[in-house]
Amino acid sequence: MIENIPILRLAGETKNNTEDVVAKEFPLHVILNNQELATLFCSPTNLEYLALGFLFSQELVKSKEEIRKITIDEYKGEVKVATDGAKDSAELLSRRAITSSSGELPHSVASNRKNIESKMQISPSEIFALTKEFQHRCEVYKATGGTHGAALCNTKGILVFSEDIGRHNAIDKVFGECLLKDIPTDDHIIVTSARVSSEILLKVAKGNVPIIISKSAPTELGVKLADDLGITLIGFVRGRRMNIYANSWRVAI
Amino acid sequence: MIENIPILRLAGETKNNTEDVVAKEFPLHVILNNQELATLFCSPTNLEYLALGFLFSQELVKSKEEIRKITIDEYKGEVKVATDGAKDSAELLSRRAITSSSGELPHSVASNRKNIESKMQISPSEIFALTKEFQHRCEVYKATGGTHGAALCNTKGILVFSEDIGRHNAIDKVFGECLLKDIPTDDHIIVTSARVSSEILLKVAKGNVPIIISKSAPTELGVKLADDLGITLIGFVRGRRMNIYANSWRVAI
Repeated sequence: MIENIPILRLAGETKNNTEDVVAKEFPLHVILNNQELATLFCSPTNLEYLALGFLFSQELVKSKEEIRKITIDEYKGEVKVATDGAKDSAELLSRRAITSSSGELPHSVASNRKNIESKMQISPSEIFALTKEFQHRCEVYKATGGTHGAALCNTKGILVFSEDIGRHNAIDKVFGECLLKDIPTDDHIIVTSARVSSEILLKVAKGNVPIIISKSAPTELGVKLADDLGITLIGFVRGRRMNIYANSWRVAI
Repeated sequence: MIENIPILRLAGETKNNTEDVVAKEFPLHVILNNQELATLFCSPTNLEYLALGFLFSQELVKSKEEIRKITIDEYKGEVKVATDGAKDSAELLSRRAITSSSGELPHSVASNRKNIESKMQISPSEIFALTKEFQHRCEVYKATGGTHGAALCNTKGILVFSEDIGRHNAIDKVFGECLLKDIPTDDHIIVTSARVSSEILLKVAKGNVPIIISKSAPTELGVKLADDLGITLIGFVRGRRMNIYANSWRVAI
């Protein structure tokens, strides 16, 4: 479930190349009675439990007795579940549902996509100033502890800010506002309170944003995608410390 | 975006009825060219930005110029987006996607559902012992900061445990394992590291679990559903403190 990756760690004025432990992330296709239902981005353990619990939560499987067979193909990232009383396709599709993702595999997206080539840079003191301003703006979080924040910034400050109970929603609101108001996102920075998984990274890549800053952890697939796509990924920005997981050349040290 | 709700707060041996501030949660139907695409559970602000940013992240809208009209119906919880070059239904549906939820409205689910009537109780010291055991078990989190944990417990300890990069996945894995192994979930307790939104609450309700314990915040809709469905919702369990948001009678003080 974990992987060691090389990072650049900054603490005050000192920097060193070290390793960090990140959580693995795995795209799992859930196929019910030969119909692909959803792609869940998950930790690669207990895949059959995940598929079944997911089907249970969607009320597509109600008891163990309905289950005829469960087949796991870890290489393809597939769990196939066969049940009695197969629901027809129309009913399944009408449930729409189901994953917080686009259903695309991050790897395939990454390979179709050109690198982000922005030459912009940011200094550690600008990073600390942005995260301080960001925390100050997260007012609903301060009141409730129940929301995530996201912001589009340049190196001098926040341009667009949003909070939402969903980490994906907070970022979608920022890009939606930029789209409507013709605010360019390339050569800019996304700051988020959330963990940086592959889906968050792909949203940022779709906006051509070269730098993402988070106070939280990235996943292993988030780091790989950032690396592949040319995005600078900075995590665990807390106090005077930060970890740089990918494309550290954009941090002007 | 916030709401004051009455809670019971325990701190060490003292309890008092007070108020807490929770984040509101709102189901938003996103309709693209007259086709319902997804239900996003969100904070009720900037709904048009959310809908657009969401469509952008799904590559269903690529630029402002494609957008002909955006209509918001806050009462129905709908954003309708009309675009040029309308994608056909098949293409939209094949993207499947898209929400982490079942696409059902929590309220409608709640009203169709019978209350959870378990008479089980738990003491504050049992709650603290469970959360301590739970934190001890969250090993991937301790290594990476990038995962959520979930556990099925009785009042004496953890029976089933999982960690995953997704908070929904962690709970789905627990229920999936219970289903496969014939482990009953009614008259039991779910402990989670995650915020308790309506979708988490509904998963717990589907398993007939009468008590949910979190170290994090609930949303306002999570609290309302817990109240309606007869589920005891305990949040912000930290040190010797906790907030009881609904059905506090199951906490034997």
